[in-house]
Amino acid sequence: MIVNGQYGHGGDVYKNRVTLDFSANVNPLGTPDRVKAAICAAAEAADRYPDPYCTALRDALSRRLAVPPEAIVCGNGAAELIYQLAAVLKPQKTLLPVPSFQDYEAALAAFGSEPTFFPLRRENGFAPDDSILGAIDETVDLLMLASPNNPTGRCVGRTLLRRVLDRCRETGTWLFLDESFYGLTDADRQDSLVPDLIDGDRVMILRAFTKTYGMAGVRLGYCVTRNRELTAALTRISQPWNVSGLAQAAGLAALDCGEWIDKTRALIAEEKAYLIRELETRGVDVLHGDANYLLLSGVPGLYDALLERGILIRSCANYRGLSAGDARIAVRTHAENEALIAAVSEVLHA
Amino acid sequence: MIVNGQYGHGGDVYKNRVTLDFSANVNPLGTPDRVKAAICAAAEAADRYPDPYCTALRDALSRRLAVPPEAIVCGNGAAELIYQLAAVLKPQKTLLPVPSFQDYEAALAAFGSEPTFFPLRRENGFAPDDSILGAIDETVDLLMLASPNNPTGRCVGRTLLRRVLDRCRETGTWLFLDESFYGLTDADRQDSLVPDLIDGDRVMILRAFTKTYGMAGVRLGYCVTRNRELTAALTRISQPWNVSGLAQAAGLAALDCGEWIDKTRALIAEEKAYLIRELETRGVDVLHGDANYLLLSGVPGLYDALLERGILIRSCANYRGLSAGDARIAVRTHAENEALIAAVSEVLHA
Repeated sequence: MIVNGQYGHGGDVYKNRVTLDFSANVNPLGTPDRVKAAICAAAEAADRYPDPYCTALRDALSRRLAVPPEAIVCGNGAAELIYQLAAVLKPQKTLLPVPSFQDYEAALAAFGSEPTFFPLRRENGFAPDDSILGAIDETVDLLMLASPNNPTGRCVGRTLLRRVLDRCRETGTWLFLDESFYGLTDADRQDSLVPDLIDGDRVMILRAFTKTYGMAGVRLGYCVTRNRELTAALTRISQPWNVSGLAQAAGLAALDCGEWIDKTRALIAEEKAYLIRELETRGVDVLHGDANYLLLSGVPGLYDALLERGILIRSCANYRGLSAGDARIAVRTHAENEALIAAVSEVLHA
Repeated sequence: MIVNGQYGHGGDVYKNRVTLDFSANVNPLGTPDRVKAAICAAAEAADRYPDPYCTALRDALSRRLAVPPEAIVCGNGAAELIYQLAAVLKPQKTLLPVPSFQDYEAALAAFGSEPTFFPLRRENGFAPDDSILGAIDETVDLLMLASPNNPTGRCVGRTLLRRVLDRCRETGTWLFLDESFYGLTDADRQDSLVPDLIDGDRVMILRAFTKTYGMAGVRLGYCVTRNRELTAALTRISQPWNVSGLAQAAGLAALDCGEWIDKTRALIAEEKAYLIRELETRGVDVLHGDANYLLLSGVPGLYDALLERGILIRSCANYRGLSAGDARIAVRTHAENEALIAAVSEVLHA
């Protein structure tokens, strides 16, 4: 989302002098070596047009997810698929729980659509609950959910997710479920809706390689949908070669990096506990989310004070439902997290 | 363009058993080593989000083209920008000379727009002439031209191009000019419209790294426009990170590959003359175009017969204004071209 030339996302290390980036929620171990090697190898055939069908990658994902290859559409990063969905559906009424990822609203606006906001309650830890069910009726064309949600890190529990799906089936509402951070979510909260889909369901589930495999600079995401009209429409509004050959090769290699992801999840579990403990000890409010990032509250000047020290975090002042004291940090390696805690201590004592 | 699961482009070496690909119009020398090295180096930082503004690349292009950086919008290949233009303008009446690149029509259709075709005459070698001026009036929202055109290889002469621009200014018609093959066009036909643009012009000029620098698998294109409303609209309907970090690094490296391009142009000039001579000697009709590819006519079974021999060319049977006997071949290296000529001889004698 670019507003008046102002970029409102994490990861903008190009305009800031940054030595540590806690603003982008990517794998703290970075890109697996196997993926880097696959990109280098693919560079040797860079003059070949990419496979417009992403055949090999979709076949591999199909086996991994136990869905037919036809149920998978790949994109130039998950973000592209959000914009494509907005372009295809042009929903009149979209129900959007907030706070949530800002590009949902930007993508809707780009194609002339304005969401109806459903405020998640701070006193409830921004967790979605049954009250969302009452807001889904026949007038709602699209519901945009994320699990875990960004920037709160909150998952939608399995029971609620199933009830939302059932309700959307009743009302004919399209359900967009963003599972982009699924791969780095706490093991005991990994409740994907992918296995619950049946043919014809008006559901798009979004996944990203970007975060899980440290591939933000490569751009690769995909969605799972059992709705053939949606698949056809997404394909129709896209150029044929939207997923680069480099990204397809990187994605295939990434799917062989199970050990790297196990190691990442173990690191995140340990380091998230460390960050929560150290921050809470220092009086910072921390939302105990399920993802590889944490929402902090109650320290209004933190963003600027850390940036002066070369540390970039994600100010959440411009999120709907959040305010100046809110900020998001990624869970990084222990050395980086220690440096962050030291800097936070300095700021709090200044 | 994907129609009913059938891919209608060149370069589809994934579904065919192909030893030689003459169907994709990319640099016959392939990707410069410097570009491959830049991709490998960028893979080391693949977990960083790309610069959403493509700042360094646009600055370099700005110096190269002598236009302000604000006049340049980068895309995930030139093809993405064609779809973005269609999404933004949604023209009621588009004037489209044919034959031409099929994705113009596909992109328009994707966003609910249907072109009015302006047939280029075979007996005129498909060269556009003054008659196009009479077809541009206030009812025409968009004119889509290409120089050189694909698959004819024909450039629009400088005088005509200036008159088209003037006419479009008079009628308020948007002018889309595809210069994707400019970088590999015959030196004496390199008439770009870029220097003629003035602030506010309703003109988008398209350029591609894909073809010139052998980067089809990397995806990188850009457009030049002095129309700020268009720039803003293109940015608004796009995700922020549509150009990967790998592509940005590759593009910057490519701009340092002047010698590689000089070598490529010399090769194409020599080999195009060789192909024309050898094909015409064998009775094949060859359109003497200005680009790095040639349109052949009058040999109806050529595509299938060559494919049986492991050589993929581009059948043009599905282009508007062309027919079963028409096919396009890329100009490749001498050894490849010799192999093609030998196979064509075989087919003609069979």
